[in-house]
This record gives sequence, C-alpha cells and structure tokens, in this order.
Amino acid sequence: MCTPFQAQDGQDKNSIELGVKFLPKFDRDGLIACITTDADSGDVVMFAYMNAQSLQLTLESGQAHYWSRSRQALWLKGETSGNVQDVIELRTDCDQDAIWLKVRTRGAAANCHQGYKSCFYRAASLDDGKAVLSFKEDKPLFDPSEVYK
Amino acid sequence: MCTPFQAQDGQDKNSIELGVKFLPKFDRDGLIACITTDADSGDVVMFAYMNAQSLQLTLESGQAHYWSRSRQALWLKGETSGNVQDVIELRTDCDQDAIWLKVRTRGAAANCHQGYKSCFYRAASLDDGKAVLSFKEDKPLFDPSEVYK
Repeated sequence: MCTPFQAQDGQDKNSIELGVKFLPKFDRDGLIACITTDADSGDVVMFAYMNAQSLQLTLESGQAHYWSRSRQALWLKGETSGNVQDVIELRTDCDQDAIWLKVRTRGAAANCHQGYKSCFYRAASLDDGKAVLSFKEDKPLFDPSEVYK
Repeated sequence: MCTPFQAQDGQDKNSIELGVKFLPKFDRDGLIACITTDADSGDVVMFAYMNAQSLQLTLESGQAHYWSRSRQALWLKGETSGNVQDVIELRTDCDQDAIWLKVRTRGAAANCHQGYKSCFYRAASLDDGKAVLSFKEDKPLFDPSEVYK
C-alpha cells in the first residue's frame, strides 16, 4: 500500500523529534498507540491502536479508524453504533510513537462500547491501602444490549 | 511486592468492566499505557508506560511515576528537570488496560524532554497527498541542553 507517510527506520533523532515530516513509529506488532479526546470538553474518551492502514484512512477520510486487537480487524469507529468520530485535529508526540486525535462524536456521542461517553468512566483511589474505583459518569448514553445485538 | 491492586487474570469481564475493584491489566512486558493530561487545560501532555511498581508509587505518593522503556528504569517524572507532576485524578478505562492521569506540573510546567509543555507539539495533516507536521506550540519552555547535561 502506498502510504502518505514514510517509515521511521533509519531517520535521525533530530528529524523525528524536531522536523516537519510525519514519520510514525509502529511497534513490533505494526501498531501505534492512539489517544482520543473530545475536542470540546478535552476529556480523554478512548485509548486504542492503529496500524498503518487505519492511520492512513483516518488522515484521508477525517473519520477515526483503528485496529481492533481483539477482532484483528480494521475498525471504523461507530460503524455499528453510529457514534462515528469526526477528526478535528491529529497530533503526534516527540518521538512519533503515539497519536492524539481530537474528535467530535456523532449519534449518542458515546465513545465506549459500554455506552458511556468516555471509556475512562471510573477513577481509582486508595481506601485503607486498597485501590478502589468510583464511577465518574452517572449512566451510559446508550444501552449496549440494544446496540450490539 | 504487596500492591494495593489485584492481578486481572481470572476475573470475569463484568467485574473488570463494571465493577469497583481496581484490576489493572499489564501487557506481556508487564506494562500498562498511561495518558497524562493537564488538569486545567485538558491537553494531552504525555504518553508513557507504567509497571506495577510505578502505578503503586503514583497512587501512594500522588506524584506521577512511569517506567522508562529506553532506560529500563523506574522514573519519577521531573526528578531531573524539576517538572514533577502532581496527580489530581487517576482513571482507568473499561477493560482496565490503560490509565489516564490528570496532573498539575511544577517548575517550568513543561512535560516534554524537548522543553515543550506537551510532547504532542505537532499536528499532522495531508498536503498534496503527503502527511506533514506543523508546530502547535511557539517555543520550548526550557532549554533541554541546559537541563539535561
């Protein structure tokens, strides 16, 4: 496949960290980590992985595509639920081994398969030496049993 | 080491995704992905990994600790630069294989070793079919050559 970006291998550190060429670094499984935030609230709504094809499709279509590690398949987010993510901005980090997508989500604006706005709907804290979780979202925005039949 | 959280292995999906036990899932290298955002602006400032020890120390001390893959060492963020990250909230995602830290950063409030506020100081977009980067921060907040001697 002809991608709009080059492989990082063999590029010098300065070009990678301070240059203007997009040189995404994929790991030994061919994947790159992707953080997705809500463009309006700034909340982290999802964490997933992309392969070269999903990154290319995201850049070209303006809709977030990922690689599903559990299904081992290309994944247009929202294809089933309707909660497609329109990409407002795509950033990369210093060593170009991570992606940050700012998105606006269609439909119920839920980004988690559990129906919550964000996958990060629970906070952890210590209680008497044990780490416990507490819910930070009141309730799911859709019923997963209705959407994923 | 006695950790304040249990291993995820053997736990059922419902307990992991909808329960209130913190059951972080570490990958085959013993690491969990960690997204760090600025608690005030909401910007993603860093992406790194934690092992069980750094996650425990983060929970107990309230200061962000990571695992440096390049140095293969425990890493108290800001130990050299003074840009220690005070943790405001620690969240986990649906399947508990990622962490989201909301932090306030001390010192120059730079989170990147290149001196920028965020490691994600460049955005990617397509220009005539090629992906190019553009800088989204004016200039570094500190001079890396001065700080890391």
